[in-house]
Amino acid sequence: MENGSTLKKKWGFQPNPELNTASEITIRGVLEMLISNLNQSDVRHVIPLGHGDPSAFPCFRTTQIAEDAIVDAVRSAKFNGYSPTVGVLPARRAVAEYLSQRLPNKLSPDDVFLTVGCIQAIQTIITVLANSKANILLPRPGFPYYEAVAQSCHLEARHFDLLPDKDWEVDLDAVEALADENTVAMVIINPGNPCGNVFTYQHLQKVAETAKKLGILVISDEVYDHITFGKNPFVPMGVFGSFTPVVTLGSISKRWIVPGWRLGWLVINDPNGILKEHGIIECITGYLNISCDPPTFIQGAVSDILGKTQDDFFAKIVNLIKEDANTCYEGIKDIPGIICPSKPAGSMFVMVKLDLSAFEDIEDDLEFCVKLVKEESLIILPGVVVGLKNWIRITYAIEPSYLQDGIKRLKAFCERHSKKA
Amino acid sequence: MENGSTLKKKWGFQPNPELNTASEITIRGVLEMLISNLNQSDVRHVIPLGHGDPSAFPCFRTTQIAEDAIVDAVRSAKFNGYSPTVGVLPARRAVAEYLSQRLPNKLSPDDVFLTVGCIQAIQTIITVLANSKANILLPRPGFPYYEAVAQSCHLEARHFDLLPDKDWEVDLDAVEALADENTVAMVIINPGNPCGNVFTYQHLQKVAETAKKLGILVISDEVYDHITFGKNPFVPMGVFGSFTPVVTLGSISKRWIVPGWRLGWLVINDPNGILKEHGIIECITGYLNISCDPPTFIQGAVSDILGKTQDDFFAKIVNLIKEDANTCYEGIKDIPGIICPSKPAGSMFVMVKLDLSAFEDIEDDLEFCVKLVKEESLIILPGVVVGLKNWIRITYAIEPSYLQDGIKRLKAFCERHSKKA
Repeated sequence: MENGSTLKKKWGFQPNPELNTASEITIRGVLEMLISNLNQSDVRHVIPLGHGDPSAFPCFRTTQIAEDAIVDAVRSAKFNGYSPTVGVLPARRAVAEYLSQRLPNKLSPDDVFLTVGCIQAIQTIITVLANSKANILLPRPGFPYYEAVAQSCHLEARHFDLLPDKDWEVDLDAVEALADENTVAMVIINPGNPCGNVFTYQHLQKVAETAKKLGILVISDEVYDHITFGKNPFVPMGVFGSFTPVVTLGSISKRWIVPGWRLGWLVINDPNGILKEHGIIECITGYLNISCDPPTFIQGAVSDILGKTQDDFFAKIVNLIKEDANTCYEGIKDIPGIICPSKPAGSMFVMVKLDLSAFEDIEDDLEFCVKLVKEESLIILPGVVVGLKNWIRITYAIEPSYLQDGIKRLKAFCERHSKKA
Repeated sequence: MENGSTLKKKWGFQPNPELNTASEITIRGVLEMLISNLNQSDVRHVIPLGHGDPSAFPCFRTTQIAEDAIVDAVRSAKFNGYSPTVGVLPARRAVAEYLSQRLPNKLSPDDVFLTVGCIQAIQTIITVLANSKANILLPRPGFPYYEAVAQSCHLEARHFDLLPDKDWEVDLDAVEALADENTVAMVIINPGNPCGNVFTYQHLQKVAETAKKLGILVISDEVYDHITFGKNPFVPMGVFGSFTPVVTLGSISKRWIVPGWRLGWLVINDPNGILKEHGIIECITGYLNISCDPPTFIQGAVSDILGKTQDDFFAKIVNLIKEDANTCYEGIKDIPGIICPSKPAGSMFVMVKLDLSAFEDIEDDLEFCVKLVKEESLIILPGVVVGLKNWIRITYAIEPSYLQDGIKRLKAFCERHSKKA
């Protein structure tokens, strides 16, 4: 310790201890760890089934309309300057109109706050709700960024289960049991990440009833909106906004296959003005005032991106993902030691359970994924990262031949590690 | 209070009380307040001398090379996906090479972290250094975003003066007097915002010596780097990085006149690896892991922007700003009641002192600026926002004819409000 104390005397700075802990539980931290385990002597290409970003594959290239919109905005030189805190008006209006198509109450541009991807939308609403003693209810499995942000701003996270045997519906009894007078909100992710489920209208209505009864906000993460291909259509939680306040989070990242463009939104579905009355809207503006903005020219492109993209582009993308989902689901059936309880119906993911008793030399999901990346150059996310130990999250939205190859490698891996009879 | 308590019972959420306070002291909060005071019946155009963003004026349009770089990156479809936490390698390399031109020790790409404008670079380093009991030394006058972020993460801010009679040099005796065993860093802004000064090599050397003696980090905000037009050339603080650790913050916003593009950097000048040894580098990565990234295609454009822009573009811009600075400085000499102690030599700003005894009906800088915007549609920032009450900060970097008009309006205003003899 002598060296340590000398250092401390000489230099006064130390790192913020909470940040390292908060960042350990992110998907990208774990993916970077997995990538560092790749076997460099494996000549096969890496199959990335770890994260929801198919943009690198030519079949998933975004529409030219979106590219043109960015190019036009840059060439206009009208969007080189700072943007207002909440975003430029035409972009806010475009998002309001885009989302209002599916809502009974028309949104106003004032209900829309533009953010640097959905990530900043999450960061904003969590930070705004953080208060001493407050707690928030998060789904398990879920998207661990919520936990990371809650931890960094001292907001207690409590977890309710999603039920695999009920198409990953929310365990609403658990929500009621967890909530107390300090509970501020509950989060749902629909279409589901990591479960690939899509909530029915009836289930969302029950969510709204529970939230109203408990007096808590519903935060609805709809970053995968419209990416559905099962029997349930996508229903925005905002349809219940006049019944109970809803904050919707979204972005162009997934539907347009441009996660790197970093344009998201936080939208208030609250025609009764309850959030305004409680100072939440003012606090959102206050937080954005001390945060960074999405680049102005990307905001300048939003009305063309949202307004001009043709349905055939969306249909093509959803169809590709649907076929991928099917390939994945059918392929898994033939693989020993892994079980998929619920066929994916939306987003880009499916949760698959490991039957560890079937394997000879695998202790848990983390070991499964690390060995898999070492032996097969196949990246899959361990379930522990999204809150379900000894499950794995497979992202199937990639170029179909890659996916088929990935499923073959997964099968070979599981067979090789199976207990011998 | 009955209504309040009923509300509290019904809905469990409340806004985070610290955020509203933190966001009140930002420049953009005050500018939005001033804009709301514009007299809508004044038919003259508004003259914006309130913030450092001349991009709206055609003579300050960015170089076509920068626009082309963005267009090429978008059209390539190579940068639609998520970027790594710390930024894409070619962009980090380009920033390292660009900054290394003026440094004795060549930077490596690993020293460079890409951020959403310089704002996120500030947010990152302040948050990383925030520890219970820690304090940071900030310049007065300064850039109030530092105070806002420090407050939001509970880092105590202490202020040292910049000395108007010594070309706004740092009062290093005050720095020594303020520092204690919990001081983690001091911030300098060079070229100066809001003072328009440029530190000499000799003064920066003294800053380095003081920091080393105190065992604190130097955070050097160089967002206005190379925008200098007085006798002192721009010297990056990083030249002293092998003597004492320096973190440099910067962006393409100002030199390329594209603040809305939101591409900044945080750079480690520390060849002795002291920051790494103390865990600061790991914590920076940890923070960026739970933060938003600059859009990937803008990162993809960085090497062309930094590498291909011709000197004639920079020379044209600096010359325009120099002429503006001169117009402003000379114009002020003729105006009663305001005094400029130091001719601006860099950045886009000058600090001007109000002689309140010369005015008949003006109590302080805030009243001065509010009346000015109401009567003359002229926006100037009250000094209280940057830490100097009863001064004003004038941004002179705008289209020259607008500036001349602005100076005339300022003169008319001051003459109208002068005490009659």
